[in-house]
Amino acid sequence: MIKRRKTPQVKIGNISIGDAHPIAIQSMTNTQTANIKETVKQIKQLSRAGSEMVRLTINDNKAMAGIPKIISQLRKNGYSTPIVGDFHYNGHVLLKKFPQSAKALDKYRINPGNVNYASSKNDPFIEIIKIAIKNKKPIRIGVNSGSIDQNILKTLRSKNKKSKNKKSSHQILCDALVKSAIQSAQKAEKIGLSKNKIVLSVKMSDTQDTITVCEMLSKKCNYVLHLGVTEAGSGLDGVIKSASAISVLLQKGIGDTIRISLTPKKDMPRTQEVKCCQMLLQSMGFRFFAPTVISCPGCGRTESKLFESLTDSVKAHIQKRLPVWIKKYPKVTQLKIAIMGCVVNGPGESQHADIGLSLPGRGEKKTAVVYVDGKLLKKLNGKIIKSNFIKILEQYIQKKY
Amino acid sequence: MIKRRKTPQVKIGNISIGDAHPIAIQSMTNTQTANIKETVKQIKQLSRAGSEMVRLTINDNKAMAGIPKIISQLRKNGYSTPIVGDFHYNGHVLLKKFPQSAKALDKYRINPGNVNYASSKNDPFIEIIKIAIKNKKPIRIGVNSGSIDQNILKTLRSKNKKSKNKKSSHQILCDALVKSAIQSAQKAEKIGLSKNKIVLSVKMSDTQDTITVCEMLSKKCNYVLHLGVTEAGSGLDGVIKSASAISVLLQKGIGDTIRISLTPKKDMPRTQEVKCCQMLLQSMGFRFFAPTVISCPGCGRTESKLFESLTDSVKAHIQKRLPVWIKKYPKVTQLKIAIMGCVVNGPGESQHADIGLSLPGRGEKKTAVVYVDGKLLKKLNGKIIKSNFIKILEQYIQKKY
Repeated sequence: MIKRRKTPQVKIGNISIGDAHPIAIQSMTNTQTANIKETVKQIKQLSRAGSEMVRLTINDNKAMAGIPKIISQLRKNGYSTPIVGDFHYNGHVLLKKFPQSAKALDKYRINPGNVNYASSKNDPFIEIIKIAIKNKKPIRIGVNSGSIDQNILKTLRSKNKKSKNKKSSHQILCDALVKSAIQSAQKAEKIGLSKNKIVLSVKMSDTQDTITVCEMLSKKCNYVLHLGVTEAGSGLDGVIKSASAISVLLQKGIGDTIRISLTPKKDMPRTQEVKCCQMLLQSMGFRFFAPTVISCPGCGRTESKLFESLTDSVKAHIQKRLPVWIKKYPKVTQLKIAIMGCVVNGPGESQHADIGLSLPGRGEKKTAVVYVDGKLLKKLNGKIIKSNFIKILEQYIQKKY
Repeated sequence: MIKRRKTPQVKIGNISIGDAHPIAIQSMTNTQTANIKETVKQIKQLSRAGSEMVRLTINDNKAMAGIPKIISQLRKNGYSTPIVGDFHYNGHVLLKKFPQSAKALDKYRINPGNVNYASSKNDPFIEIIKIAIKNKKPIRIGVNSGSIDQNILKTLRSKNKKSKNKKSSHQILCDALVKSAIQSAQKAEKIGLSKNKIVLSVKMSDTQDTITVCEMLSKKCNYVLHLGVTEAGSGLDGVIKSASAISVLLQKGIGDTIRISLTPKKDMPRTQEVKCCQMLLQSMGFRFFAPTVISCPGCGRTESKLFESLTDSVKAHIQKRLPVWIKKYPKVTQLKIAIMGCVVNGPGESQHADIGLSLPGRGEKKTAVVYVDGKLLKKLNGKIIKSNFIKILEQYIQKKY
């Protein structure tokens, strides 16, 4: 298994992150935060889908004023999901003005690129950190390529001008992002926030850039890290971009929490980003959320229609039954089911899986073969294949878990 | 950039693979190969989508007999895509029996796990390699966890019994897969097939397993490698599983060709697997196929409807215009377009992109700002935003490329 980078334990509401804990899944609402009803509804959806933290933007008085109500409604309804406030520009003002909301939130996310934006005599960063310390809240210092601290960028640029080994402006941007994160974290520690209250992230919109800056950051500190590709886009582009960057980093042991942020598309629920995180962590063997279905792509050998509809049916059955199974048999998430289309890899993959169905390909004997724990259990024929296989699957789960 | 593992140049029809060449994208038909009309139609679809090699199963006489017709129809219609014959069990029989088909194919894929299946006095593996040499064809030796050579497995198991450092049966399976690939390749070389006619692959159905065996293989030889997760499943599961395994390997410099094989789902065209390969290679910066759209996930700050529909429209416009753009401006594939939903990261990401549109978030001044090459170009208001931005985009492409 992958050895994770050593990080402290950071408690966020009722969950803990850090290398001794499972890699946590996050998401963010896109409802108007001030619309309490819609926001509570979406947090519940995200939470049920598996989001272990939900972030809300808190952009104005109205949004901040509603926070205690949002959180108390969630808790009353049995949702313990930690709620994170996302602040830009005016975080210090809102956190001071609404102390009940500051108390109710489980974490504050601040952006060093704009925390100093407000013209204030007092340092807004210090103000926020002091409120966090008073309320015993963790902070995420989230640096983003789209909102980099311009002062740091300027300093690094002018240093570069005098340097013998000139860096490209892109390299300087990467350096500035990492520097901004670490500098802010060290400043927060100096103010009195302890290391186990700090989470860092540095996000860029390009896969290789994201890998580069997260690796740089991970080498320079041992703070807990949150991973994600910023502005990854919509649809499969966004999924694949995020998956490629995050998987490379996770494989190096980097990352304590992740988010796959996707631009919403018609007919794509916001919960999709949570499901994608689960699929990624499961595919890499970090965590398990649902039985794995191993199925071949089909080819000229497979009776494609039967094979495809069977795969669909079994996946639909899993989705329907999963909430019940998980309560009764929590280890069912590690189950491996193979549904294979012909004799080439069918029997082999079915034997490697916990339970496998190898269908006859074109020109093969019309018999589907069921394997359980590597051994031949039964041969099935004709129209009963689907219903019988599902029956066998249910029996297997009941017996094994 | 990633330094790729050094490999020889292997020519397959009109394309070349190896570390000096772009990572090639492959796919496979799932029509009945003997159905020439349907097979030609699907090969054309896959080829137009960007598949640079297309593999067909050749399972029986009828399938093999139709090969010259399939290929000549493709070539007549201007499709030069190399066609690969996928053989199991009876490849040596078919290749001998249909010399015209053997000549017409651009590559033969054989599976050492079943090439010896047929009871034949002559060694079927030697027969196939000799035909390949005669016809100057490259071979892919494709090893698969579902059809591992049982003799190698047995040998390794009994060796393990006598060994002091016992390996798990899973480790032995991995060892056997790698051994099967290398042993077959070396045997082929001994028969007289040169190294630049050999491609290897070792596929397993689990991400970590796939990474492990491909890394093992890459350390033990310098043959050209094809990557893929076998039986990855359907839908997003399959995409994410494949993307995670392949991206980790590509990042290590391993892999000269890839396939993302997906179990077909309703409403998902077979070409989806080709598009996913393109997205993966592009997201990692290896190759570029279409302009990149950088867009944020939206949050409580963004006027989500406007922002989402704009992103959709721009992506639809790109898809529609891409065939024309590519012919006129081949470098358009490297274009980066940002469409951002609010002031937090909007102006920053828009400035980093070639052309960017930063929309006003909730409560912000109702003006969308267009950046070109990092500089403010124009402010747009109201209903004209979409049409004007697309006009600006078209002008930019015309001017820049």
